[in-house]
Amino acid sequence: MENFNIYNPVSLHFGKNILKNLAHNIKKYGNKILLVYGKGSVIKFGYHKIVTDILTEAGIEYIEYSGIKSNPIEKDVKKAIELGIKNKVELVLALGGGSVIDSAKTIAVCIPEKLDVWDVVKLKTVPKKALPIFAILTLAATGTEMNPYAVIQNQKTNEKLGFGYEIMYPKHSFLDPTFSFSVPKNYTAYGIVDIIAHAFENYFGYGNSSLADNFVATIVKETMHYAPLVLKEPFNYDYRANIMLQSTYALNGTTSIGKTGGDWGVHDIGHNLSLLYDMPHGASLSIAYPAWLKLMKNKIPKRIGNLSKLIYGTEDISDFIEKLEYFFQSINSPVYLEEASIIYDKKSEIVNLLKKNKASGYNYSFDEYEELTELMYRKV
Amino acid sequence: MENFNIYNPVSLHFGKNILKNLAHNIKKYGNKILLVYGKGSVIKFGYHKIVTDILTEAGIEYIEYSGIKSNPIEKDVKKAIELGIKNKVELVLALGGGSVIDSAKTIAVCIPEKLDVWDVVKLKTVPKKALPIFAILTLAATGTEMNPYAVIQNQKTNEKLGFGYEIMYPKHSFLDPTFSFSVPKNYTAYGIVDIIAHAFENYFGYGNSSLADNFVATIVKETMHYAPLVLKEPFNYDYRANIMLQSTYALNGTTSIGKTGGDWGVHDIGHNLSLLYDMPHGASLSIAYPAWLKLMKNKIPKRIGNLSKLIYGTEDISDFIEKLEYFFQSINSPVYLEEASIIYDKKSEIVNLLKKNKASGYNYSFDEYEELTELMYRKV
Repeated sequence: MENFNIYNPVSLHFGKNILKNLAHNIKKYGNKILLVYGKGSVIKFGYHKIVTDILTEAGIEYIEYSGIKSNPIEKDVKKAIELGIKNKVELVLALGGGSVIDSAKTIAVCIPEKLDVWDVVKLKTVPKKALPIFAILTLAATGTEMNPYAVIQNQKTNEKLGFGYEIMYPKHSFLDPTFSFSVPKNYTAYGIVDIIAHAFENYFGYGNSSLADNFVATIVKETMHYAPLVLKEPFNYDYRANIMLQSTYALNGTTSIGKTGGDWGVHDIGHNLSLLYDMPHGASLSIAYPAWLKLMKNKIPKRIGNLSKLIYGTEDISDFIEKLEYFFQSINSPVYLEEASIIYDKKSEIVNLLKKNKASGYNYSFDEYEELTELMYRKV
Repeated sequence: MENFNIYNPVSLHFGKNILKNLAHNIKKYGNKILLVYGKGSVIKFGYHKIVTDILTEAGIEYIEYSGIKSNPIEKDVKKAIELGIKNKVELVLALGGGSVIDSAKTIAVCIPEKLDVWDVVKLKTVPKKALPIFAILTLAATGTEMNPYAVIQNQKTNEKLGFGYEIMYPKHSFLDPTFSFSVPKNYTAYGIVDIIAHAFENYFGYGNSSLADNFVATIVKETMHYAPLVLKEPFNYDYRANIMLQSTYALNGTTSIGKTGGDWGVHDIGHNLSLLYDMPHGASLSIAYPAWLKLMKNKIPKRIGNLSKLIYGTEDISDFIEKLEYFFQSINSPVYLEEASIIYDKKSEIVNLLKKNKASGYNYSFDEYEELTELMYRKV
């Protein structure tokens, strides 16, 4: 077991009508906030009205920045920072999924010292202060509601990068499973892939931790169990609640106890696919993970075999990868690039970007981008 | 799933030589501290010297209160509070197991407003402030290093009570598994029983949470796996580290997500046994849990059957209880009162105290103390 630190000061409010805890907690920090959200869906489904009614009734002034994209871009974050600085906001409130919350976190660490977004993302400038971050989650997937990480992409430099600072933990996160009822089937499925991928990335990280490995397997098995149920009955509270809780626990530190961190190679590969084709994050991962496992099966057979054993009871790696592919296909998340309508002609484009951005993780720091991409295209 | 809140701001430092993080973190809060410990074992095994050397080198002044008992009593806590007030200490540092850390937590919430210990324990006075609490753990068992709870007993009123306040979370806890190498076999075993009992108490709490149930089963199975290993090789770092991490995770909130709390009836029964015979906490639980399960098996057969299934793969309750008894016996923790040298003549004494203190939990609020005590005495 490796030396490690656990520190996660997020206050997570979970359940029906949990927004009753929103206003008085905001008011501990200020009365003027920046409300960040994405597309019109939070308006369409009424969540925006619920939240703004609460704010108005409590006498909290809110400035809005909407239009955060589902692969959030540096340009939007920059505009929101300018808006926040101009209006002297005291707190950033995110209403949305991972992209909106990640944007809000980045905005919150850039405002106090008027920092450049991309310098902060690239860890060139280390922010010392952050505005308080509050999050209202509408999509179970990234776990950002209970961790200090964010992912932002830059269209100019053609990079999509994950980063984190301890001051980027939300102060309060609000998870009402009914706010995820309206998530369409495809994005529900991509969220499920993301949950499983987060558990896997931590599993393949540095260190031996039997308890963490078993927590990973528990989360993966539970997610696979609830996946077909929630896709069949998207308005079932208990199913949505279970998936939401699994998403939080896949990446709130629980899956990496006794380790120094995760692998994150597959996320890096996936980010490059998203950059090229604006592919949903989860879809990129259901393509990249099986291919990565095929590449790694001779390099880390014991680790993969043990994961297979913990989840399926046998150490047969090929069988494990097939079952995983079958699971992703069963929830309609693509397993091959061609299923995501990326024609074979694009292959060199992918290989080149993976090379340029040196896509890699703890177990994946080699140069087999050609082979990896081939494996992502089709069943070999 | 029930509405719930997760908030656990403890910074947990885990691993070899982890006390390198001690001094600079203390100095954020002050330069004069109260160092609390128990019997001479922390001196005998050199942990006291390691800690005081670190404090001295960093120029941190420490006042010592030693002699906390393994079932900590109100009288000792009171004396330590007086010492702390007199010396105007700015922080309380615990060096020891659950009893020492629980005492330190209680001391820390009583000092600022000079509160009466027993009023605080009985929730009659709600403390508003606490001195910062730091903990260095030497025994894997109670999980107090990462939660806001404590248990204190009062010899005058003949009560042993658990209580908690949000301000009672330690700021920093330091878990170096080598500090638990010297724990004798019997106390290692009692700690293991305590870990399993904490997981069970949460399992039997109010609410349906599939993820929490599976986390419980994971912790129990892992603890049962490492128990014989650590008892055979008490100086094996990896074994001690795993047991220590399991103890933290059995009661840091992870096992009660999606629920409103645990049952805690068996702990209440166990506390009464400890009161009467100064019995080690873990030993009282290995006696009380099987008896409680026998009493409850017709009342909550599905819950018990499901726990059995998650741990052993079958829903056979009688078989489950037998396996559990066998496990406790295999690590030499008593399963019957007679094994703990409590003669049958004492039966009415036990029944009377259970009645007087109304020993109960979420599932256990009936009046079958006679039957329960009979079940604790011998195999029926």
